Amino acid sequence: MTLDANCLFCKIVRGEIPSFKVHEDDKTLAFMDINPGNPGHCLAIPKFHSETIFDTPDEWLAVTMATTRRIARAVQTTLSPYGLNIVQANGPGAKQSVMHLHVHVLPRARDDGLLLNWGLKPGNMDEIRALAERIRANMPKD
Amino acid sequence: MTLDANCLFCKIVRGEIPSFKVHEDDKTLAFMDINPGNPGHCLAIPKFHSETIFDTPDEWLAVTMATTRRIARAVQTTLSPYGLNIVQANGPGAKQSVMHLHVHVLPRARDDGLLLNWGLKPGNMDEIRALAERIRANMPKD
Repeated sequence: MTLDANCLFCKIVRGEIPSFKVHEDDKTLAFMDINPGNPGHCLAIPKFHSETIFDTPDEWLAVTMATTRRIARAVQTTLSPYGLNIVQANGPGAKQSVMHLHVHVLPRARDDGLLLNWGLKPGNMDEIRALAERIRANMPKD
Repeated sequence: MTLDANCLFCKIVRGEIPSFKVHEDDKTLAFMDINPGNPGHCLAIPKFHSETIFDTPDEWLAVTMATTRRIARAVQTTLSPYGLNIVQANGPGAKQSVMHLHVHVLPRARDDGLLLNWGLKPGNMDEIRALAERIRANMPKD
């Protein structure tokens, strides 16, 4: 893996910054978004530093999406949301907030009216920790 | 490839319904969204019928994302948008409109205020056709 010394998500991969992990393997990490658009909002990232989808090698995209699929299934099992979006943002017009490729697994509530740039509101840490445990317990084997 | 007789996107794969193609290979197809959230909005799909991310095999996700990355780069080169989102919708809360896995490549304009459920407004077919040609001409080799 190739990481960047100053990147927030690379620091999470190295364990220098804590996170509520829901999955980890050799090539990917998934953890709770602490500014959730809705409860259960998770992120999947490669253990490889690239900023956007434009410059991410296909093999890293592939493993990140395999992890994304598994998290999506775990979130669906845990919360049975009315819908679920996979979202990845590039550049300021999409309000990309961390310059390390990350894929949002965002459960949808009926009529939640979320914008594509849904804005960053800090969640309740106790609730996020408890949700992480429930989602992790429902992670599919494959 | 495994296709479904009654699926709109499987019919596009088989050429039974026309589309403005921007890329095609053995396993994937990419074409213009005729209800664009913004000009240049494209879709990437696998030539495999699965409804959601939950039930899509990893190998089909991987090839679909490789095509998504290439289209994203072609759209970026063609239009230089202020940002670009990759979006995939599952279920009614995310307004999934066709039950065949599809990945949106959605260029963002400054302050476009798009919702995650951005709504379906038909675009101008001549403009969409012309954009498809420009995007196709900018498709990267890998």
